[in-house]
Amino acid sequence: MFKKILVANRGEIALRIIRTCKEMGIKTVAVYSTADADSLHVRFADEAVCIGPPPSNLSYLKIQHIIAAAEITNADAIHPGYGFLSENAKFSKICEEHGIKFIGASPEMIEKMGDKATAKETMKKAGVPTVPGSDGLLESLEHAKKIAKEIGLPVMMKATAGGGGRGMREIWKIEDLDKAWESARQEAAAAFGNNGMYMEKLIVDPRHIEIQVVGDAYGKACHLSERDCSIQRRHQKLTEETPSPFMTDELRQKMGEAAVKAAEYIKYEGAGTIEFLVDKDRNFYFMEMNTRIQVEHPITEQVIDYDLIREQILVAAGVPISGKNYLPQLHSIECRINAEDPFNDFRPSPGKITTLHAPGGHGIRLDTHVYSGYTIPPNYDSMIAKLITTAQTREEAINKMKRALDEFVIEGIKTTIPFHRQLMDDPNYVAGNYTTAFMETFHMKKIEE
Amino acid sequence: MFKKILVANRGEIALRIIRTCKEMGIKTVAVYSTADADSLHVRFADEAVCIGPPPSNLSYLKIQHIIAAAEITNADAIHPGYGFLSENAKFSKICEEHGIKFIGASPEMIEKMGDKATAKETMKKAGVPTVPGSDGLLESLEHAKKIAKEIGLPVMMKATAGGGGRGMREIWKIEDLDKAWESARQEAAAAFGNNGMYMEKLIVDPRHIEIQVVGDAYGKACHLSERDCSIQRRHQKLTEETPSPFMTDELRQKMGEAAVKAAEYIKYEGAGTIEFLVDKDRNFYFMEMNTRIQVEHPITEQVIDYDLIREQILVAAGVPISGKNYLPQLHSIECRINAEDPFNDFRPSPGKITTLHAPGGHGIRLDTHVYSGYTIPPNYDSMIAKLITTAQTREEAINKMKRALDEFVIEGIKTTIPFHRQLMDDPNYVAGNYTTAFMETFHMKKIEE
Repeated sequence: MFKKILVANRGEIALRIIRTCKEMGIKTVAVYSTADADSLHVRFADEAVCIGPPPSNLSYLKIQHIIAAAEITNADAIHPGYGFLSENAKFSKICEEHGIKFIGASPEMIEKMGDKATAKETMKKAGVPTVPGSDGLLESLEHAKKIAKEIGLPVMMKATAGGGGRGMREIWKIEDLDKAWESARQEAAAAFGNNGMYMEKLIVDPRHIEIQVVGDAYGKACHLSERDCSIQRRHQKLTEETPSPFMTDELRQKMGEAAVKAAEYIKYEGAGTIEFLVDKDRNFYFMEMNTRIQVEHPITEQVIDYDLIREQILVAAGVPISGKNYLPQLHSIECRINAEDPFNDFRPSPGKITTLHAPGGHGIRLDTHVYSGYTIPPNYDSMIAKLITTAQTREEAINKMKRALDEFVIEGIKTTIPFHRQLMDDPNYVAGNYTTAFMETFHMKKIEE
Repeated sequence: MFKKILVANRGEIALRIIRTCKEMGIKTVAVYSTADADSLHVRFADEAVCIGPPPSNLSYLKIQHIIAAAEITNADAIHPGYGFLSENAKFSKICEEHGIKFIGASPEMIEKMGDKATAKETMKKAGVPTVPGSDGLLESLEHAKKIAKEIGLPVMMKATAGGGGRGMREIWKIEDLDKAWESARQEAAAAFGNNGMYMEKLIVDPRHIEIQVVGDAYGKACHLSERDCSIQRRHQKLTEETPSPFMTDELRQKMGEAAVKAAEYIKYEGAGTIEFLVDKDRNFYFMEMNTRIQVEHPITEQVIDYDLIREQILVAAGVPISGKNYLPQLHSIECRINAEDPFNDFRPSPGKITTLHAPGGHGIRLDTHVYSGYTIPPNYDSMIAKLITTAQTREEAINKMKRALDEFVIEGIKTTIPFHRQLMDDPNYVAGNYTTAFMETFHMKKIEE
């Protein structure tokens, strides 16, 4: 087993990893930027090394500083957390070259799963459902019409060089292609100097449902069931839950099997997540794979009594997994508490926390690196806490979340606590009736102060 | 279901009950003494009524004030928590007379189980093992010798009017009775004006293991397995765990069956605890029954995913139980954090908490009514928080407790956090090798500040 792990991250996830290391009797090294000197991950680690100032490319993304910190402190492994260098193939490779175990995916695996086209191709070969499409460029308007009929309307026409929605067209009627064909190509040419187009089936108002997998060094993988992350704002997840209210036993079995098949096909080692889009008829399509721990991993831990960080460390140390799949025994919800003003378009609200009172009691878990008197630096992600409730039923987990949000006091800054509180009263949310389009029609009610 | 519950208690248990009521959609009324105006149970209840000044006999024990508060606020039920009026037959009866449901035992049940001699007699009739003894007064020295031989040495000779250890003699050899007989009788006569003596088997260095039971209004009961509460100081529990490291599947089945038999024999309604002494050969003997929720109830909740307060409320409202028994699926430990100085004979240390930082993350539960800036009044019990860890194994639960205790910051007062931290490193504790005599030989190590 590792003797000392360097945690190449900050905030709640750095603290999360340090906690499990302590429980496993493994020494820890924190790295931190000058803006994070007062953070709890620095205080609770056995050693701490300052690796530079903000922004991140001068510290948390500075590979040579982190490797130097690991060498100075004699760390024999590095846990990258999420974000930053967690899915950086070069970093994974440099760790390997320095004889430091990277607790994450191999450089080859990160490259394979990081490129979306390659990942989709690989998943297709593994027999995992992917979004049907043209499998290459559209040659002409006639070709586009033929493909559209083959895969079935609605479809999405996309610029091959595209991004940010430019050169993208939703096609709901075959006649719409006549007009869209030229305008999309012109837009793509203007934006990217490349008018190449391809086509994919449009998944209308999908659910974002992901399957947690763990694979070991011996080619065996298991799944730990799903997390529903459909409640998003600008592709940022706001709250997650497991089980998904949309899930059926049959669908879970199918998605779980697909995820395990995919992980074993690529010989995936470590904890990973396979994200799927699920349409209203419960067809599911591979979206992408994250080769790291996810922000929302605690809800999975809560419903199956598991420590995913511990499992990552064990697998990285060569311990084989049992291979058994895990089904949710309880219901768990996570609310991401961000330093943002939900009444003002979720504008960031860094600054000093003058008072913090955490909720507690039965079924409450709080993962946070902040405390009364802590000043949130403006340089990083605005998430300051994850509040997780767990109960026997979804209704109880929601009721627990309401009372926990009511107890949670954070003064000095604005937070998304009021957003989550209103969400927990929303009839569609309460009914479990939501898709990734949910936030387009959800609006905050003003509160009398 | 009840519309509004008055919580006739203070501190963490009042908050605990209010939390579950909120989650069930039941309104709450807090009552408080003038010393407790700033307590969280007052802040988080829907309504709050001041019922007088400290000490408790002017407020929390003032039955007419509490009944008046319930009538003014239209509460249809009262939850008494633990301590105070929770096992007061008169209070239970007065609630009944006022048409207010007492969420606890009936007056008859409290009387029956409150008197130790009657309780023992009842349990014996129910077929539950009790400590063997003379079943009445000893008539002569010869009679005493005969009884001692019958029940087997060692035995304890006790004054029938006794208390505080006076008139009590441990008898390890039959010859010792000759000397003890007269001296104990003289001591008893001098102390109580009554030299009547009786005899019980001496249970040497027992374990204190209790079984949680729940009975419903229809005569059905179930058990929720055990809690080991052997780590005590002057009969005050300091830390508890479940499962007991001393437990075997066979013993759990026997003790569970005995507890269910006892509860059903007396038609027990609500949550209750049957405390047993368990000797080194795993013989168990009824000690007493607590007809209320216990301080240490959370560890049971943690290992079976259950909410005992919810269950109390449901049963009081006439909901039947399933009757199924619950076995521990995980391991859970509770440390009682008291405002006491463990380096100074556990002397109380009330005062203002200047800083409080709570531990968090995976497997941590904290039940507390205090916060940064809260002043602990000197008038009440010194317990200020219950820190509970839960994991798949005992070893992991201990490691989690160590890191949680290390994270827990309470400044401004002295607490028992250092005691628990040292306990978690004690080789006998870690080996699960302890009895109620444990604290006689455990001594705090001084820490360099």
